[in-house]
Amino acid sequence: MLGKPRRLALLAEGSFSASDAKTAVGLLRYRPEEVVAVIDSTKAGRTSRSCVGVGGDIPVVANLEAAAAFEADGLVIGVAPQGGTLPSSWRQTVAEALLRGWDIFSGLHQFLADDLELATLAASKGCTIHDVRRSPARRPIASRRAAAVDAMVLLTVGSDCNVGKMTTSLELKQALTAMGLRAKFVATGQTGILIADHGVAVDAVVSDFVAGFTEELVIEAARDADVVIVEGQGALHHPAYSGVTLGLMHGACADAMVLCHAAGRTHLRVSEAGPAPRIKSLSELIRDYERAAGWVQPARVLGVALNTTTLDETEAKRALEHANQLTGLPIVDPVRFNAEPLAQVIARRCEERRRDAGAA
Amino acid sequence: MLGKPRRLALLAEGSFSASDAKTAVGLLRYRPEEVVAVIDSTKAGRTSRSCVGVGGDIPVVANLEAAAAFEADGLVIGVAPQGGTLPSSWRQTVAEALLRGWDIFSGLHQFLADDLELATLAASKGCTIHDVRRSPARRPIASRRAAAVDAMVLLTVGSDCNVGKMTTSLELKQALTAMGLRAKFVATGQTGILIADHGVAVDAVVSDFVAGFTEELVIEAARDADVVIVEGQGALHHPAYSGVTLGLMHGACADAMVLCHAAGRTHLRVSEAGPAPRIKSLSELIRDYERAAGWVQPARVLGVALNTTTLDETEAKRALEHANQLTGLPIVDPVRFNAEPLAQVIARRCEERRRDAGAA
Repeated sequence: MLGKPRRLALLAEGSFSASDAKTAVGLLRYRPEEVVAVIDSTKAGRTSRSCVGVGGDIPVVANLEAAAAFEADGLVIGVAPQGGTLPSSWRQTVAEALLRGWDIFSGLHQFLADDLELATLAASKGCTIHDVRRSPARRPIASRRAAAVDAMVLLTVGSDCNVGKMTTSLELKQALTAMGLRAKFVATGQTGILIADHGVAVDAVVSDFVAGFTEELVIEAARDADVVIVEGQGALHHPAYSGVTLGLMHGACADAMVLCHAAGRTHLRVSEAGPAPRIKSLSELIRDYERAAGWVQPARVLGVALNTTTLDETEAKRALEHANQLTGLPIVDPVRFNAEPLAQVIARRCEERRRDAGAA
Repeated sequence: MLGKPRRLALLAEGSFSASDAKTAVGLLRYRPEEVVAVIDSTKAGRTSRSCVGVGGDIPVVANLEAAAAFEADGLVIGVAPQGGTLPSSWRQTVAEALLRGWDIFSGLHQFLADDLELATLAASKGCTIHDVRRSPARRPIASRRAAAVDAMVLLTVGSDCNVGKMTTSLELKQALTAMGLRAKFVATGQTGILIADHGVAVDAVVSDFVAGFTEELVIEAARDADVVIVEGQGALHHPAYSGVTLGLMHGACADAMVLCHAAGRTHLRVSEAGPAPRIKSLSELIRDYERAAGWVQPARVLGVALNTTTLDETEAKRALEHANQLTGLPIVDPVRFNAEPLAQVIARRCEERRRDAGAA
């Protein structure tokens, strides 16, 4: 990861669950070979799989010292809290990791390398603090250039935050690759960047340049790809993050979208107490996403990825069928079942575009 | 301005026109008593009014030395170029101003106080570089709290960038104040901040916090106001800036909007050569803005502010009538004619809300 193979400890103290430890779970699912332990004293002694469903027998341990016994050489901040600030109790753990000579990987808005004490410690031990959410110093301004790439651009969008946009993107990439297509994943968030070793966390970029950075990423990825799959962020109906979502949409100039939703979730996750806004129906969401895309570049929603974690298997299958009846589109749970029915529709659309381009 | 009355020179070298020198024109319109000269060697010897229609007899001079003859004590970067970078030829002028002991006011994305050479110069001369686009260090997350304020929140939105959102906001504030209402202006861009001595440049904020900062500004302004007028940014259909616009909309949770448009402009101003996207009709724009607002908090467009600078008086009046027929809404050019017809509709809506709140 970021330069060389790693032996990582994932810090998820008090929050090692599928819903709270987004970054940890992403790495356990897609780069388990580089994880040696997860730190959460409240679940020490268990395996990763028993806590979050992935990561097999990777042990959950009580503290940094226990992780060191597995010869860890790096510490990842395994949560992505709203607001992006380091829980104060974790600061000491980061300092301890640096004292042991480990590199640090953080996706927080608060840059750890800007913390004078931590930076000094890192320098004295010769280790590196990777703030993966820190954006490049450029100031790119978007101008629909991504609409002109030859590759098909697919964007995952969501009914809310944390519904599976990154996972759906990665699963679709895998399925399309298996079908013989050159599929590329464009990471736009901290976990995606850690997994892909590349990307820009667009929610940490100065707002004038969200679309511009997205455009750059798409154009770069499109050079040797049939399909570029862009990881979406936020949600168009979310009071805090809708601007990030729309900037990303208009920068990507996608040809098609996949709508992601967490089955059973009825209300948006907002930071304050008080009545949370209701999530609209899938049909309304599809209509709104297609409208908003069309303000800059028309794009159709080709299908829905339903995260059915909270349902049992029978309920899950029923939820997929129900969503299919409601929307008339292919519905998949790419993790629990598989992404193929949706990947096939995408591949067909890709083929159509190629034919149209050839005819033109 | 920013602490004390000033004697400002406005730097607009080679670009002192109404369309290019947005920041200079804003200050000349709303704080002319603090401007002593405009620097543009291509127009030296003329008056401000003859170049941009405002600023009366304030002289346009060839260089910094000539501005110094008018006892200037501050230099304002008078343009807001796309990308926000300091034109390289201007850097020398900034350095010269610092050598004379002037304070610097810049609304660029590129922070001048972070330039080691300029910062050292400023320190040695005891002067201050004000980067008004630099955002506070907080990380506020929005959650529809602005929807709960007692004041009526009005947001200006646009068909494109640079169509008159700030000017319309300030003119409406004046008209509403004249009608006896307590009207507050919320500045969200660099020029507005220089004029109001307060605000946050939301286009320079990390994208996750655009809505959050807007929410804070609205709540603060609403404390002792009947109407809070929020300066809009960008445009929902602009490929580069739509995300800023939507974040601002959803943070402000406005009760009503005013659509701003430059009469006669048919295409969006985008940075690249190539075909610029067409601007939609006023009715389509109103529909799209109301839809997008409604994803978080319903808001109606109450009227249209038409910037008719490019038309003669007869054409201008015809344009207002035509827009009125098209939309059925009050249409004003708040600068050329006056904002009152629109201010009256806003005042009525304000009264309605108060009655409804009283009845509830």
